[in-house]
Amino acid sequence: MPGKNDVGREGLLAATEKLLRTIPPARVTIPRVAREANVTPSLVYYHFGSRDALLLAVVDRVTVHDHREPPKGDPATALAAHIAQTVKLVRRAPYMNRLMIDELAQAEPDETRDRVRHMNLELIDFYRTLLKADGGKQLVEADPFYLFVAVLGASDFLSSAGPLIQGLLPKNTDMDKLADGYQAFLVKLLMHGMMKSAAD
Amino acid sequence: MPGKNDVGREGLLAATEKLLRTIPPARVTIPRVAREANVTPSLVYYHFGSRDALLLAVVDRVTVHDHREPPKGDPATALAAHIAQTVKLVRRAPYMNRLMIDELAQAEPDETRDRVRHMNLELIDFYRTLLKADGGKQLVEADPFYLFVAVLGASDFLSSAGPLIQGLLPKNTDMDKLADGYQAFLVKLLMHGMMKSAAD
Repeated sequence: MPGKNDVGREGLLAATEKLLRTIPPARVTIPRVAREANVTPSLVYYHFGSRDALLLAVVDRVTVHDHREPPKGDPATALAAHIAQTVKLVRRAPYMNRLMIDELAQAEPDETRDRVRHMNLELIDFYRTLLKADGGKQLVEADPFYLFVAVLGASDFLSSAGPLIQGLLPKNTDMDKLADGYQAFLVKLLMHGMMKSAAD
Repeated sequence: MPGKNDVGREGLLAATEKLLRTIPPARVTIPRVAREANVTPSLVYYHFGSRDALLLAVVDRVTVHDHREPPKGDPATALAAHIAQTVKLVRRAPYMNRLMIDELAQAEPDETRDRVRHMNLELIDFYRTLLKADGGKQLVEADPFYLFVAVLGASDFLSSAGPLIQGLLPKNTDMDKLADGYQAFLVKLLMHGMMKSAAD
């Protein structure tokens, strides 16, 4: 067993990410992270300087997407893969979007806010590039910003609405299976919605 | 100008709903509502008994939907109207879903929680009835629960992700116009996704 404070930056990020999967962001504080990683709070401060900086580093780590690269191959296939990836990512870090929204979007310093803003603008650019690459061949016309909102919103809700969702399901529901089913449904629904049909 | 405490139950509900449109639910407290309505907090307690009961009464008031009645006429048309209605409703009360999720879903007493649960189960039943009425003629097969999550999630995000969304847009963006555009986009996307195409 590693000794106290024998944990590096990566270990602290992993501990924070683990907490963000299970408890609401507001309760993920530096003392709570320190306890999870079995280190002193001062070590967390030493590595990150502030709670905002720690949370931002976790968001950065989790959201290293493929979408930062221009889409390769068939744009419709790339869009389907991206939607599946978004649902998967949200499941991996269910409180991440809420964290960005409720805390980081209003965080000081401006550097943090700008970073979150930039990450989301990159995502909108990904949609724009993809729609342009298709050029109306397979995909219907769409505003990249609206597409971003719809995909992220629909992906996010199953996780972020957790307490509400769970109350609607039988007690013994297998949530992993449910999430797999939702992922498949959403990819199908949105791709069917975005693909031109014979009638278009 | 009406005198202090010259406000009834309806006036208090209207004041609470107005606050929920502009400030996060956590800040909508009984003293804040009393100040908004220009009454004493004790009058709010007199009418509602507790903050939970007040918030639930507002949710009840806002979510008196058409969907409680069985869909009339063409199921596909009813679905399109319902999606448009959901986006509109979320705009009218942007913090309402978050309120249900973050607070009421975990609220005591159980009566409140059961009421929220029931309202959402009714909504899922609406989708089930509608899909059954169509019988696979115009609409693709879909799990009513997944459809509920996707419609609500995509509708909710433009409002509930407010601080994040606003940071991504130019400062002088007309948010009403943007929301109108999103509503039209979402109805088109989801209906295209749900309608059978020639290829199905």
